[in-house]
Amino acid sequence: MRAVVFDHDFRFVTDYPIPEIKPGWAKIKVRLAGICKTDMEIIKGYMGFKGVLGHEFVGIVDDCDHADWAGQRVVGEINAACGRCDWCARGLGRHCPNRTTLGIDHLDGCMAEYCLLPVANLFPVPPDISDERAVLVEPLSAACEILEQLPLTGTEKVIILGDGRLGILCAWVLATVAPDVTIVGRHPEKLALARWRGIQTSLKGEGITSGADIVVEATGSGQGLTTAMSLCRPRGTIVLKSTVAIQEDINLAPIVIHELTVLGSRCGKFSDGLNIMSNFPDMPLERLVSGRYPLEKAAAAFTLARGENALKVLLKIAD
Amino acid sequence: MRAVVFDHDFRFVTDYPIPEIKPGWAKIKVRLAGICKTDMEIIKGYMGFKGVLGHEFVGIVDDCDHADWAGQRVVGEINAACGRCDWCARGLGRHCPNRTTLGIDHLDGCMAEYCLLPVANLFPVPPDISDERAVLVEPLSAACEILEQLPLTGTEKVIILGDGRLGILCAWVLATVAPDVTIVGRHPEKLALARWRGIQTSLKGEGITSGADIVVEATGSGQGLTTAMSLCRPRGTIVLKSTVAIQEDINLAPIVIHELTVLGSRCGKFSDGLNIMSNFPDMPLERLVSGRYPLEKAAAAFTLARGENALKVLLKIAD
Repeated sequence: MRAVVFDHDFRFVTDYPIPEIKPGWAKIKVRLAGICKTDMEIIKGYMGFKGVLGHEFVGIVDDCDHADWAGQRVVGEINAACGRCDWCARGLGRHCPNRTTLGIDHLDGCMAEYCLLPVANLFPVPPDISDERAVLVEPLSAACEILEQLPLTGTEKVIILGDGRLGILCAWVLATVAPDVTIVGRHPEKLALARWRGIQTSLKGEGITSGADIVVEATGSGQGLTTAMSLCRPRGTIVLKSTVAIQEDINLAPIVIHELTVLGSRCGKFSDGLNIMSNFPDMPLERLVSGRYPLEKAAAAFTLARGENALKVLLKIAD
Repeated sequence: MRAVVFDHDFRFVTDYPIPEIKPGWAKIKVRLAGICKTDMEIIKGYMGFKGVLGHEFVGIVDDCDHADWAGQRVVGEINAACGRCDWCARGLGRHCPNRTTLGIDHLDGCMAEYCLLPVANLFPVPPDISDERAVLVEPLSAACEILEQLPLTGTEKVIILGDGRLGILCAWVLATVAPDVTIVGRHPEKLALARWRGIQTSLKGEGITSGADIVVEATGSGQGLTTAMSLCRPRGTIVLKSTVAIQEDINLAPIVIHELTVLGSRCGKFSDGLNIMSNFPDMPLERLVSGRYPLEKAAAAFTLARGENALKVLLKIAD
């Protein structure tokens, strides 16, 4: 089958073996896949991954030992949990220490004609949600994870640092609940398209007052946490969405002095992402799509995705 | 009056002016004062403080416009809040942006015959609590702050990093609620005296298994947070008690990947510290006293307090 593979080199191939279905798993015919920053890290060597890239997709169940699923349009959670450990028993399979991860860790990904996932990972996509919206369910759910971890009263003042895709999605999700959301970034055109439901924007943080109840750090830079500490009120919460290694001096004393809570926040539940898509059909997810390429043009798609101004680049694999 | 003063130089003087009482404030005749790590920082220039050192004390109210307080044996919270701002209105005067702080910030401290504090800051010391226990109320309350911020179910596995005075107090306070508390340190003799209510000890972390629900970072070193991240279970909590500046590379990705909560925790309520002293009369607070000196020997007391093996050094000012 056609596939985008990383194995020391990044390449498009036409002769990758079609994956073989296992009991309890589904074989999915992929229609659309998204390129994520993690994919860019993997082709630099992150996780030591080798195989088919990609973990964001929407597709059709092609084969599966649960007949109800055949022909369903689906998205799928990327962590294939073991189903047997304490974490799985608590419904937190995404923290399962034995998990494999689609296109990231010991499981071939979705930038191919077919991929495999456990049936337990699949979510049917309601007919009112287009492929181009559905393919964004993974980052949108990651933004929803904030609401799952940090219940809001609906009175909070929120600042989002970072106008990349994740920052914008966090702003949109939080704006469904909080009345006062400001997104801070460095790209006027990204900030312009972040505006929805009264979200305020600030270029490079100009005109921002401190004292936010919640600051979401989604810049992906080490400096972000220092900025977040300066903008958060005493006893407020900093949500860390980007996995950063800080390679400069950082003074963490403000966390203690102001008794801040720093909350690490990773993936979310796809059910939350799909629900928010259904409940907010006007959430302008399509604005995040910076380009669409056929699978065989993956190299060009990755080049665009690496660019400063790109948000989400999609690979069209099948109709 | 006799006083220990820092004003570029550290010195004992006998002619410091006796402070004059203000409306709403009490003049306290100090009996016993404790030397804290913060005092050591101040004489290196921290906060740019000049004046009488010291913020840990027990004393007798000498003069006050509230007659009920006269003659009371008291301890006192160190932050003199403005009483007028939002923080004060919410009972969080210790975060008041207009506060002065006893012996730390624009308010003469307690290493003197007399000091001043607002009456609102004072707590009577019950007769069953000795001076030597009462003088530890400030660090003990700082340890109690963890319980105020992080309600425990009583089933948690807790690891404390750091066998200094604050680490030991955190272990003792958490051991009143949690059944499985381990303290990790580098000093066999400090670890030995930390043992109480089944607290386990580990020299340099040997034999420690990860997966703690709560890790308290009280080492005062930048490396502590990295160790804490490695010992905390997914979705667990790291409590930061020491105000650290990290001057090396630090990878904060585990906070996000494991969705950890990092909780900054500072001072606590003296009422909590006094309550725990009354409720746990067997808490071996006296073990923390490494030395007792008269006020005029403050230089020798500070030298001992700076030593690797010292925990709490006291200055005896009056009977």
